Amino acid sequence: MESFSFSNESINYSILRERAFNLRWASLPKGVIPLTAADPDFPCAPAISEAITRFAKDRYFSYVPAEGYAFFREAISDFHASKRGLHIQPDKILPVDSAAFGIQVACKATLKPGDEAIVFDPVDFLFKYCIEQSGATARALQIPLDPSSPIDIPLLESLIGPRTKMLCLCNPVNPTGKVFTPSELQTIAEVAIQHNLIVLSDEIWSDIVFTPHRYTSIASLGPEISDHTITVSGYSKSYSLAGLRVGFVMSSNPTLFNKLVQASLHGSTVHGCNAVGQVAATAALRECEDWLEGFVSHLQSMRDLSLQEIKTIPGFECHEPQGCYLLFCNIEKTGKDSATLQQFLLENAKVAVVPGLPRWFGEQAAGHIRICFSTSEFLLREAFSRIRQAMTNL
Amino acid sequence: MESFSFSNESINYSILRERAFNLRWASLPKGVIPLTAADPDFPCAPAISEAITRFAKDRYFSYVPAEGYAFFREAISDFHASKRGLHIQPDKILPVDSAAFGIQVACKATLKPGDEAIVFDPVDFLFKYCIEQSGATARALQIPLDPSSPIDIPLLESLIGPRTKMLCLCNPVNPTGKVFTPSELQTIAEVAIQHNLIVLSDEIWSDIVFTPHRYTSIASLGPEISDHTITVSGYSKSYSLAGLRVGFVMSSNPTLFNKLVQASLHGSTVHGCNAVGQVAATAALRECEDWLEGFVSHLQSMRDLSLQEIKTIPGFECHEPQGCYLLFCNIEKTGKDSATLQQFLLENAKVAVVPGLPRWFGEQAAGHIRICFSTSEFLLREAFSRIRQAMTNL
Repeated sequence: MESFSFSNESINYSILRERAFNLRWASLPKGVIPLTAADPDFPCAPAISEAITRFAKDRYFSYVPAEGYAFFREAISDFHASKRGLHIQPDKILPVDSAAFGIQVACKATLKPGDEAIVFDPVDFLFKYCIEQSGATARALQIPLDPSSPIDIPLLESLIGPRTKMLCLCNPVNPTGKVFTPSELQTIAEVAIQHNLIVLSDEIWSDIVFTPHRYTSIASLGPEISDHTITVSGYSKSYSLAGLRVGFVMSSNPTLFNKLVQASLHGSTVHGCNAVGQVAATAALRECEDWLEGFVSHLQSMRDLSLQEIKTIPGFECHEPQGCYLLFCNIEKTGKDSATLQQFLLENAKVAVVPGLPRWFGEQAAGHIRICFSTSEFLLREAFSRIRQAMTNL
Repeated sequence: MESFSFSNESINYSILRERAFNLRWASLPKGVIPLTAADPDFPCAPAISEAITRFAKDRYFSYVPAEGYAFFREAISDFHASKRGLHIQPDKILPVDSAAFGIQVACKATLKPGDEAIVFDPVDFLFKYCIEQSGATARALQIPLDPSSPIDIPLLESLIGPRTKMLCLCNPVNPTGKVFTPSELQTIAEVAIQHNLIVLSDEIWSDIVFTPHRYTSIASLGPEISDHTITVSGYSKSYSLAGLRVGFVMSSNPTLFNKLVQASLHGSTVHGCNAVGQVAATAALRECEDWLEGFVSHLQSMRDLSLQEIKTIPGFECHEPQGCYLLFCNIEKTGKDSATLQQFLLENAKVAVVPGLPRWFGEQAAGHIRICFSTSEFLLREAFSRIRQAMTNL
């Protein structure tokens, strides 16, 4: 097994300052450490760049098939069969331009004005955003902020009415880091089947799970729940490929899958998944298992380090995440709201974090900040040291 | 000046059979020559692959800025200033995921249900499709099939009513190959300004113009028409980059431009323009002028060759295109409709062409087939020889 380094020396800060946008290095004043967008500081696996270079060498970038390259769909199918116990044929998998667009496609395919869909609170804003783009309404299900606490199933059921068409499951949960157990998912699956809901399972964080927790895809629990599920994922979190814009949607249910294909507008070429993204993601799935193992192992150390550091910062409290490389810190005891604290840390600690604004994560996010720990030990220690000093001098 | 070859030997047929989809090599039975989708058989300019390889070597594919890379926007701005006499600041240019998506963004940004937009007949289906996606209605303006005949301006004006919001200009026209003269564009601009219409100028074919014709961007005619215009283009036709999905929309009008940005959904990351596409298109604009000159010169020869060949095929008639690498052949004298003839040629000549179906090109397209001549002299001679033989034996 090749070994990969996730040391500080492996990070190319000058390239990050040129290329890492979306609240990160290239969007911030020099000297600020971004613990913001969920995008790693490390370069991607060498095999991914090598695959792109091989593909580019031929100098052909012709139209890709509307349904995606066969080799990529097969790689996705094989990955889910071997790693998730989830058997979906390649012809029920549609490569799309990012998981974010995949969520929009799923909502557009299945929701119409007047429909309702249930989303967690807190969770990333994209579910609600895409539900509303389809003219439907998002109903918020408050979930425990402690990842080890279960979802309140009676509360979930109380939100289901005649117009409820979909349950949006983010597993692991961004931002709390909860990883659902098979029995929790089984209960959710039973509710979905009983009420004939579609489960939209956002699995973009599913590679980032810390021992002893293990990942379960809800669609793998049986054929009936599989036929109620649309699974969506992408390659930004695990493989640092956000800028290549590549993800997929899939469903074993032919009716649902055909609706996804229609909603994608791939047939008209208005939308599509670019060739290089598909080549890169295929290399990720086929050649980068060792790299990913090393990355997740590093992240588990960084999670433990970050939790230790948080304990020493006045007013900060945090549950232990089971997955995702995010800490969702309660900062109510600092006496500041999340936007004020974010600005304070930016100015006084030169560290950027994401404020728990209700419009980004839901009502329960108020009083929290989100910290991304997908970087080197050196940088994390420096960032927490700066935060601690700023908060101690407050 | 480096010289580039557009000989038959420069074409890699085995790669095309793997990678060229959308009615082309990889979508057709072996042995069939595709003169179908507007996608060249030649590999792209070496500088484009080299730029991708350099970018990939760093192994960073982080989030791109929602507004696009500054270097790409500057390259687009510089290109239009120097080659089109059109001065648009980089901050009024939005890189998008293909020209097709750019047309959708423009329609979504400016049209609402009940609105009307004028589209040529014949023209590629994407205008009508995107107008209808926005809930608006497309009104067809019949244009002469002979590229040298002018647009009927009184007919255009007769289609303008209180609900008319947009005039969709495809210049050069796919499929007729018409290149608008400055005075024709001036007249159209005056009509647009007088009736306060937005001109959506699709310039994806604007590099492919044959001497003595010269290209004029309608927005370059003056500040007033510029502020009524949304210009959209991409890099599939000139640089063979369809699979990289990269294009742009732009407008000097800040209100229009802001509507484009909103409609793009780039701010939410649901849509965006991938990093490698932007790198490749920048290399095309900055480093591939000589390559493009060689390509267009080759295409002009192929146009002349194709017109000679068409004269020898019973029942085929064709005007001389001024731009685009397409022949739009009237085939009414064959006694077959376009779909029947397309199938006949596929089976008997092993040549694939695009039938002039009204749903793809408008009502006037009936009785026509579209032939793409962006290939080698060897292959074109072979294809026309097969067509001639099949038609002669009819």
